[in-house]
Amino acid sequence: METMDYNQIKQRAEAWIKEAGNMIKDSFDRERTITYKSHAADLVTEMDKSIERYFIRHINHEFPDHRVLGEEGYGDNITDASGVLWIIDPIDGTTNFIHQQCNFAVSIGIYFNGIGMLGFIYDVAKDELFTAEKNNGVYLNGQKLPMLQKTVLEECVFGINATWLTPNRRFDHTLLLPVVKRSRGTRSYGSAALEMAYVAAGRLDAYLTMRLSPWDFAAGKILIEEAGGIVTTVYGDEISLLEQNSVFCGKPGLHEQVMKELLSGQK
Amino acid sequence: METMDYNQIKQRAEAWIKEAGNMIKDSFDRERTITYKSHAADLVTEMDKSIERYFIRHINHEFPDHRVLGEEGYGDNITDASGVLWIIDPIDGTTNFIHQQCNFAVSIGIYFNGIGMLGFIYDVAKDELFTAEKNNGVYLNGQKLPMLQKTVLEECVFGINATWLTPNRRFDHTLLLPVVKRSRGTRSYGSAALEMAYVAAGRLDAYLTMRLSPWDFAAGKILIEEAGGIVTTVYGDEISLLEQNSVFCGKPGLHEQVMKELLSGQK
Repeated sequence: METMDYNQIKQRAEAWIKEAGNMIKDSFDRERTITYKSHAADLVTEMDKSIERYFIRHINHEFPDHRVLGEEGYGDNITDASGVLWIIDPIDGTTNFIHQQCNFAVSIGIYFNGIGMLGFIYDVAKDELFTAEKNNGVYLNGQKLPMLQKTVLEECVFGINATWLTPNRRFDHTLLLPVVKRSRGTRSYGSAALEMAYVAAGRLDAYLTMRLSPWDFAAGKILIEEAGGIVTTVYGDEISLLEQNSVFCGKPGLHEQVMKELLSGQK
Repeated sequence: METMDYNQIKQRAEAWIKEAGNMIKDSFDRERTITYKSHAADLVTEMDKSIERYFIRHINHEFPDHRVLGEEGYGDNITDASGVLWIIDPIDGTTNFIHQQCNFAVSIGIYFNGIGMLGFIYDVAKDELFTAEKNNGVYLNGQKLPMLQKTVLEECVFGINATWLTPNRRFDHTLLLPVVKRSRGTRSYGSAALEMAYVAAGRLDAYLTMRLSPWDFAAGKILIEEAGGIVTTVYGDEISLLEQNSVFCGKPGLHEQVMKELLSGQK
């Protein structure tokens, strides 16, 4: 990807994301009535679809040779990661969107031959846009964020939902119970994209979840790696870009420690 | 308490809270260096103390017959709830303050002979001020919030930290495991004051925790009750204002359902 293309793509993507955020916020204002909650499920479905189509329309027009993988299925039929690939979640954190009208995000990761080039996670309600460019660091609303420093379990705030700390069919939850006891605390926000953005920004020291789709982690992976953090599956393997994966991401030191001391007991 | 006093107290409290927020934000700007995190524990200690003293100085000057119960211990020696009592947490969510520089709050509850009259929870980083006046509803940044409607466990988002869903010495966590399976999801933000404000605002449908001090719940209790929600201990008893309590708060319907179906099994 040429430098020129790269800057142009970034500028376009940011403008479209901000516009998508405005469309979502406008929909809140329109629907903010006493009966809001009962219609919220319909609203989110419509907004999800409409935002994804908005991105695809603009991408197809501006960058006809790029391909799109989107949660709502309006993108291309993607079976390989060749060329420029946009991976889009129009609204990550649907339950929060419905119940809270905050703590949800627009998430876009742009890959070139499978390598993360640009990541964008936009917290619409807080107007916080987290961005990353390969080899150029991570930014929050245009302000460069510091690189992630090493930490240890005993000094960390760990993002993990209670689902993975209680009996469940995907994972031996007892392996992770020491996280609750040994860390400074666990947090759960209900949006994987935001939780990964928070890891990139140092608000969380780690985040672990058992099943994410490409559109959930595509942007977050780019942000965290660009910030100097580590992103793998809970088995310590590389994330497979086009499949569902477990995701364990976090600061250096902490990631190795948890893999070794807690997660090495897995089959 | 006369109507005149009540409005005056509210105006003063809001002004002081906003000023306290500015002092906290200024401290971020001063300390925002590469070594920020290593000094953060000192910073929060100093800020906690300094903000509490700021409130007490103004309250003593403006309302010399009011008493203050504060987390940092600079207030009065309170053994009963008679008269006008300010219950203050200068910074609720200390770990978030240190790690995130967001998701913490200034919390003030004002009681008259033990009855909640005014509640204030200020999310400094987001500039969200939740307020409640007895018999006059709950407001977010001056905009009135709707009364809480009945809900059920199966349609709720439940605020609870993983600590109480994993083996711990205060509570038989197995009683609450159905919350994980049956609800739409659990969330944990790491600030009891904010979590109670979110219940009052409908962002969470319930919140449960096993040990809070008066300054953690004093404002939140007023907000939630004024919004039509229910606040008890996990045993269904009334909260004791001047002691540590467990707290289970939530929307009507949901609170009764969880008490009956899950928590009635307690000793």
